[in-house]
Amino acid sequence: MTSILIKNVWLDRDTVDIFIEGNIIRNIGKNLDVNAQQTIDGSRKAVIPGLINGHGHAAMTLFRGWGDDMPLEQWLYDRIWPREAKMTEEDVYWGVKLACLEMIKTGTTCANDMYTMFNATAQAATDMGIRMVAAPTIWDFFDKKNTEAAKKQTLQYLKDAQKYSSRITFAAAPHAIYTVSSELLQWSHDFANDHNLLIHLHLAESRTEHDNAVQQFGLSPVRYLHKLGLLSPRLILAHVVWLDEEEIKMLADHEVKIVHNPNSNLKMASGYQFKYMEMKHAGITIGLGTDGCASSNNLDLIEAMKTASLLQKAWRYDPTLFSAQDALDCVTINGAKILRLHTGKIEAGRLADLCLIDLNCAAFTPNFNFVSNLVYAANGSCVDTVICDGRILMQNKQVPGEQEILDRAAAIAYRLMKK
Amino acid sequence: MTSILIKNVWLDRDTVDIFIEGNIIRNIGKNLDVNAQQTIDGSRKAVIPGLINGHGHAAMTLFRGWGDDMPLEQWLYDRIWPREAKMTEEDVYWGVKLACLEMIKTGTTCANDMYTMFNATAQAATDMGIRMVAAPTIWDFFDKKNTEAAKKQTLQYLKDAQKYSSRITFAAAPHAIYTVSSELLQWSHDFANDHNLLIHLHLAESRTEHDNAVQQFGLSPVRYLHKLGLLSPRLILAHVVWLDEEEIKMLADHEVKIVHNPNSNLKMASGYQFKYMEMKHAGITIGLGTDGCASSNNLDLIEAMKTASLLQKAWRYDPTLFSAQDALDCVTINGAKILRLHTGKIEAGRLADLCLIDLNCAAFTPNFNFVSNLVYAANGSCVDTVICDGRILMQNKQVPGEQEILDRAAAIAYRLMKK
Repeated sequence: MTSILIKNVWLDRDTVDIFIEGNIIRNIGKNLDVNAQQTIDGSRKAVIPGLINGHGHAAMTLFRGWGDDMPLEQWLYDRIWPREAKMTEEDVYWGVKLACLEMIKTGTTCANDMYTMFNATAQAATDMGIRMVAAPTIWDFFDKKNTEAAKKQTLQYLKDAQKYSSRITFAAAPHAIYTVSSELLQWSHDFANDHNLLIHLHLAESRTEHDNAVQQFGLSPVRYLHKLGLLSPRLILAHVVWLDEEEIKMLADHEVKIVHNPNSNLKMASGYQFKYMEMKHAGITIGLGTDGCASSNNLDLIEAMKTASLLQKAWRYDPTLFSAQDALDCVTINGAKILRLHTGKIEAGRLADLCLIDLNCAAFTPNFNFVSNLVYAANGSCVDTVICDGRILMQNKQVPGEQEILDRAAAIAYRLMKK
Repeated sequence: MTSILIKNVWLDRDTVDIFIEGNIIRNIGKNLDVNAQQTIDGSRKAVIPGLINGHGHAAMTLFRGWGDDMPLEQWLYDRIWPREAKMTEEDVYWGVKLACLEMIKTGTTCANDMYTMFNATAQAATDMGIRMVAAPTIWDFFDKKNTEAAKKQTLQYLKDAQKYSSRITFAAAPHAIYTVSSELLQWSHDFANDHNLLIHLHLAESRTEHDNAVQQFGLSPVRYLHKLGLLSPRLILAHVVWLDEEEIKMLADHEVKIVHNPNSNLKMASGYQFKYMEMKHAGITIGLGTDGCASSNNLDLIEAMKTASLLQKAWRYDPTLFSAQDALDCVTINGAKILRLHTGKIEAGRLADLCLIDLNCAAFTPNFNFVSNLVYAANGSCVDTVICDGRILMQNKQVPGEQEILDRAAAIAYRLMKK
């Protein structure tokens, strides 16, 4: 069995050794007397759990900077969809590799991903060594023919999922209530129940979506899902900006999980008044996501933590809200709970997904409060070493093969965006 | 005369050479046929003007993470002021060195700074090689005895200012209307006029400040300054969140300059509805600042650009506002205009303050739109090389002497914060 010993690393105001055996954190303590195949010097470094990106579309790193500062409809219909239609499995594979590279570089070891080409995504994540909940997006645009094709496609992908690493978990992903019929939503729910899967869905992202739901279904988005019987502990909703107190109670009562995407919501101007405080008080588990690079432009969860915290303080006019620790919880222990993974905490017995943070830089000088510095002063560039499932993916800020990924992904992106 | 040739660097969608002679950009063109003392390989790098931080308190890097997630009054009275009272010139010197290090690392070549100990600040900036408009903060708390002391202090510092590098410009800095009497405000204005100096002042930062002004002076902050005769082209106002349309017109009519500090305003929950659009349409020159590290925790202007742009889009519900280029203009050409410097643009004849950005990383892959990637995808860690006043301050992301600065600043901070 492989083993790693991290010596003298800073953890929760103490200096410890961490022993990893196979893919498990086996032991944490002072001066551990163990033999390990690999030893990592943890001095002037802090250890944190590998970060968990609660919502994204990895392949869309290929669209970075391709449609900024424009209205949502123009962005989606003119810039994104016509180019996505041209993408091959090979394109998606390299796009996801680029995303994984960026995530590893910035301390993310696990992504909750939603994209159409499941196999390319799962293969890239397998090859890059990260953990992923990979959900193939389906939609039928309220057309019966598409509904059946989407079901068939999902069943096929579920079979395909056996081919990939145990780090890849399959999930259902009906796209949104404005692109997926009630029949396909309910089928996705039953399908997920039958196979014990998570369901990943965009919801209540923009005011337009909310108002259209009221007009089309006679119900606001959360109430509509409630009526369809979709609210359940296996449901993960991305965004959820537009809802009221009663809907928050519905979500809490059914133990629905929520993923906040602050940078995407700000940049797309979808809505900034995310009701973190009400949801937290209602007992809802809240994670954080970056969304895809077409809408929020990078996959840096350390940046996302800061935006989430500052935004909540700002629109509530209360600097005490959404502390740095709250933000870190969202991308660690909450993320793990949402994705049903035994990660998210540096603790013996948990899966060995963790990062070493380089403290020898301005962002951590002085270091009165490590979590504050991580969230408010640092960004993804402070990550030095990343271990996922007991395997070292990055050391000294270097990921093996990164130049090839940058070059190939760029070449694909330029080809795709040519007229 | 010293000279530097930057070969094959990416500038505005073209690849060029840049020749720097002394402290001036002498020539820009294809395959320049010149001899230079130093040659820099610019391939896979883009050149941008050195960034200009419009508002900060450099010495306060020593307070990073010392008072987060707490109400403003508790933060200021319990955490900041008692510790600041203990600071020596030596402490400030190393605090400012730490700030300069962080600014250089993240592409800032010029800071508009406000702090009490002028000499320590000016000396540190001189030694670190950056450009600085250094203004010694004064306040009298409406007590006549303090008023005279503040005037005397300022006159002394003006004399002292001759001792430092030509990169250091002296400015006047009455702290704020709630700490400085009308007499000292008007004296500062006359003093600045007499010596052709800029004036750096906090204004209309929080709703409390606005409401107190109405109560205490019978006028909102901008109107109060107008009545005192302080509005002028040499006045630089930091924050200015709380004002109305008529006040924007007053500022525009008097060519007052404004510096927006988005991260500080969000984190302190001072106000998020900065009226960038109205001010821009009124013709006001708007810069960006980080504020001090006690309130916004880092000095990364690339991060500040993103926050400023996203925030404006979000609260206006319009993703087309405050484009990436608008954000870059704020920290380059607008900053130069505000500080009356011939910098802020890569152009023959301008002062040689510039940065090379490393394009060989995920944030710039693909690179459809360099400015979008810089603002929305990157952060300060993408800066590879920094030149200020024709001198190389950083190359290959290394600043000479950085370890000593980190170690000494940290030791000082820990000593200061001990009970």
